[in-house]
Amino acid sequence: MTGEQHLLPEEPANTSPAEARAAFRAGLRVPTSGYSAGFAQVNVLALPRKLAFDMLLFAQRNPKPCPVLGVLEPGQLNSELLPGGDIRTDLPAYRVYRDGELVEEPGEVLEHWREDLVTFLLGCSFTFETPMLDAGIPVRHLEQGRNVPMYRTWRRCAPAGALTGPLVVSMRPIPAERVADAVRITSRYPGVHGAPVHIGAPEELGIEDLDAPDFGDPVDIPTGWIPVFWACGVTPQAAVMESRPELAISHSPGHMLITDQPDAQLQVP
Amino acid sequence: MTGEQHLLPEEPANTSPAEARAAFRAGLRVPTSGYSAGFAQVNVLALPRKLAFDMLLFAQRNPKPCPVLGVLEPGQLNSELLPGGDIRTDLPAYRVYRDGELVEEPGEVLEHWREDLVTFLLGCSFTFETPMLDAGIPVRHLEQGRNVPMYRTWRRCAPAGALTGPLVVSMRPIPAERVADAVRITSRYPGVHGAPVHIGAPEELGIEDLDAPDFGDPVDIPTGWIPVFWACGVTPQAAVMESRPELAISHSPGHMLITDQPDAQLQVP
Repeated sequence: MTGEQHLLPEEPANTSPAEARAAFRAGLRVPTSGYSAGFAQVNVLALPRKLAFDMLLFAQRNPKPCPVLGVLEPGQLNSELLPGGDIRTDLPAYRVYRDGELVEEPGEVLEHWREDLVTFLLGCSFTFETPMLDAGIPVRHLEQGRNVPMYRTWRRCAPAGALTGPLVVSMRPIPAERVADAVRITSRYPGVHGAPVHIGAPEELGIEDLDAPDFGDPVDIPTGWIPVFWACGVTPQAAVMESRPELAISHSPGHMLITDQPDAQLQVP
Repeated sequence: MTGEQHLLPEEPANTSPAEARAAFRAGLRVPTSGYSAGFAQVNVLALPRKLAFDMLLFAQRNPKPCPVLGVLEPGQLNSELLPGGDIRTDLPAYRVYRDGELVEEPGEVLEHWREDLVTFLLGCSFTFETPMLDAGIPVRHLEQGRNVPMYRTWRRCAPAGALTGPLVVSMRPIPAERVADAVRITSRYPGVHGAPVHIGAPEELGIEDLDAPDFGDPVDIPTGWIPVFWACGVTPQAAVMESRPELAISHSPGHMLITDQPDAQLQVP
């Protein structure tokens, strides 16, 4: 939409989280990669109150794909993660699922909202890509200007109440001599998926062709680089598609909520 | 009860978790400290299903006092933490709260049980006392053969739905030159309360007299030792007493559930 041009910040990386959310609220619809450097971006999933225990238990039983950074209770539209904000309008793009089917991908969800929706905010691996780069570990999809490739796997998540589904993973190829460093560094960020769940041997996850991801874009894998797999925040959306709750609202992939939480707060010793 | 004598294992530390649970099921009523060395003992709290989301959210918002190691859904009486067991009988002693009041302290809760109860299993600091001792850090209450002293504090937990209450802490005095080591070691065990929440200055927590704990026993503090405070698993029981749900069933303090989970699995890098 040409009408959005005036909303585009000149320097997305230096835009504050509040400024970015205000621009999205005003109508800007762009992927959030590269926005508000140093602040955590999160996956969003809102479900009816009667499924809220099942979802929080699903996250407790599957902490690697579903690291909970915050929960907005029914009627709560913001928190210290988005002070003064509105979870219904402050993302650049949403997905609305009814009975597990994607029915719309709007810029705000005011008309879909219900007072009984509980919103889960889940960590995103964008956060640990910065310390990987700082350590000199290449992040291939960034080098190639693509979205990270994501795959459904054979691995099942631990079910919880009405929710069940496959583990979804993201893949970053890493030079063989840096794989141990990638494990070491990402293990310090359990709140954003943490250490890898699988290294090499994609066929053991049921992935037949790395060039055909289920979400995102394929990347070229240089000789001597190993595919490394991390648990992915798309996992709860896959559970929604399989478990078919009457209503679920999520972010649109790549169009995350930008929070006021500094990335640095997510590092453990 | 003299009838229990034949149930007492000769070597509690070498009793397997399954053997210990069987002895408690048969009627043995003893504190579990020293039982089944190397296996995690956990705090237990069962609440009606309609409060289960609030409790799990309370734990998510207060992870230091409430580290969730497992949840038994309605109708579920065991899990991989107590394979083949029965959560209603396998602890040596229980507490039953009605409307927040302690009404009974029985050896099993079969007649109090309801099909809609959801049981939360929360990590216990017994787990990190072993690596502290291994590192040569004295654990004063063990030296003195007492229960650990615990205190209600001025600090409020983050509320969640119908649940609110004060932070309860346990206190271990540590020689000043070993306090940093105690922080370093316990920070590796986030699933059993992790690093301390407060070091020195008990008055800043609202603790007027260290010799008068709210739970457990006082310990003598040698000159040059600093009181170090960890978040405590009694915190959710304090929330029950304040928030007054119609029914809550917990372990009796010191009479924990002994699980099949090795302590070593609770260590992070």
